[in-house]
Amino acid sequence: MKTIKMIVAYDGTNYAGWQIQPNALTIEEVLNRELSSLLSEDITVHGASRTDAGVHSLGNIAWFDTNARFDAERIAPALNTHLPADIRVLESCEVSNDYNPHNIKSKKTYEYRIDNRDVYLPTERLYSYSYHYDLDEKKMDEAIKCLVGEHDFTAFSSVKAQVKSRVRTIYEAGVRREGDSVIIRIAGDGFLYNMVRIIAGTLIEIGNGRKEVSDMIKILESKDRENAGPTAPPEGLVMLGYEEL
Amino acid sequence: MKTIKMIVAYDGTNYAGWQIQPNALTIEEVLNRELSSLLSEDITVHGASRTDAGVHSLGNIAWFDTNARFDAERIAPALNTHLPADIRVLESCEVSNDYNPHNIKSKKTYEYRIDNRDVYLPTERLYSYSYHYDLDEKKMDEAIKCLVGEHDFTAFSSVKAQVKSRVRTIYEAGVRREGDSVIIRIAGDGFLYNMVRIIAGTLIEIGNGRKEVSDMIKILESKDRENAGPTAPPEGLVMLGYEEL
Repeated sequence: MKTIKMIVAYDGTNYAGWQIQPNALTIEEVLNRELSSLLSEDITVHGASRTDAGVHSLGNIAWFDTNARFDAERIAPALNTHLPADIRVLESCEVSNDYNPHNIKSKKTYEYRIDNRDVYLPTERLYSYSYHYDLDEKKMDEAIKCLVGEHDFTAFSSVKAQVKSRVRTIYEAGVRREGDSVIIRIAGDGFLYNMVRIIAGTLIEIGNGRKEVSDMIKILESKDRENAGPTAPPEGLVMLGYEEL
Repeated sequence: MKTIKMIVAYDGTNYAGWQIQPNALTIEEVLNRELSSLLSEDITVHGASRTDAGVHSLGNIAWFDTNARFDAERIAPALNTHLPADIRVLESCEVSNDYNPHNIKSKKTYEYRIDNRDVYLPTERLYSYSYHYDLDEKKMDEAIKCLVGEHDFTAFSSVKAQVKSRVRTIYEAGVRREGDSVIIRIAGDGFLYNMVRIIAGTLIEIGNGRKEVSDMIKILESKDRENAGPTAPPEGLVMLGYEEL
């Protein structure tokens, strides 16, 4: 038996997220179906990040076991000929049978894009949140910096998240403006359910003046989801990739 | 009677281009329909650039006459509430009744984007041409530079184009690489039917080594479409905008 690791990029617009669920198409379901067809056996993939409905990825990680005699590196190009155009496997390789990215210390990087024009650009709408009120990206940058380090992120996670610990380490975080787009970038050892989108929603309230920069640390320390901003819409979020440390 | 000018941005993916045609949805048709409904009279828009099927725009110009008593500036926001999400009117204003951008000396700027990764990114696929062979953007940049100035662009125009003169002036042109994307940018006083896409297709053949940099000037001087490269696919092309000179 071989274990295969794949790097998977997708446009999440038309999917109900990564994880299989009834009555909705997911990335996991499409990968299982096309891999099973390609390798002529029942394949079950695991995902490093269970992205939400509408969230995009440039480099999620999927892995699975197979008994098929198929060169590991050839799986990516072969699978791509069967996958829909909005999912691509960037590469595939063999890993040890006990491979599990959840047990490997790694840096996960996300970006949240905001189209901050008066009227949004149609060519940006699928990959940005359209927000036309003024945003002060310098205040947002100052605010997000206080999240760097090891903290309990309960205030920035969905109450639905069922996890043992809500402590995570943020390695780097920043907000920059590129023309009329405001881009939030955050990298850490892991993120709780909805965490990046709740951080984005909170930063938007700081950027538009509804909250103060100094509120960010108070919200973090309160460990109360009610104090943070709303969960920002999924289309602005993209998982950039994983890097093993 | 008032003449109204609008700046129109659109994602061309789901349209058969700008110009009205039978049995296919076009940008012009949608604007006519929604403006007529908004202003309660039959409106016929004119477009500065008749972009092809699948081509995008960040700033095409549309203009029309109306007798409606409606503030010119309010037309854009009012119309946007009725338009599909992939078309946005960025602004609207009143102009003189003899307004016609074809009679105004202006600079039109286009970009052609190529996703030059081994495997394309799904989130780039609607707004880039996916081309995975090696491209030497420096050679492409050197080649496009010889188009700057006033030339007869017959070699780079569709034989279907019915125009009096195929002489156009290119103000500036260049090719740059941004990460794994190669971006062709060209600005001029006007472009013939398919001209930017044929220039892009020719530059790709120079970038991949099938043609030499020195072929560019020979092709231009030959005035023969057969000598140029293929018409590059529409999804990579975006009209950035118009600037009156």
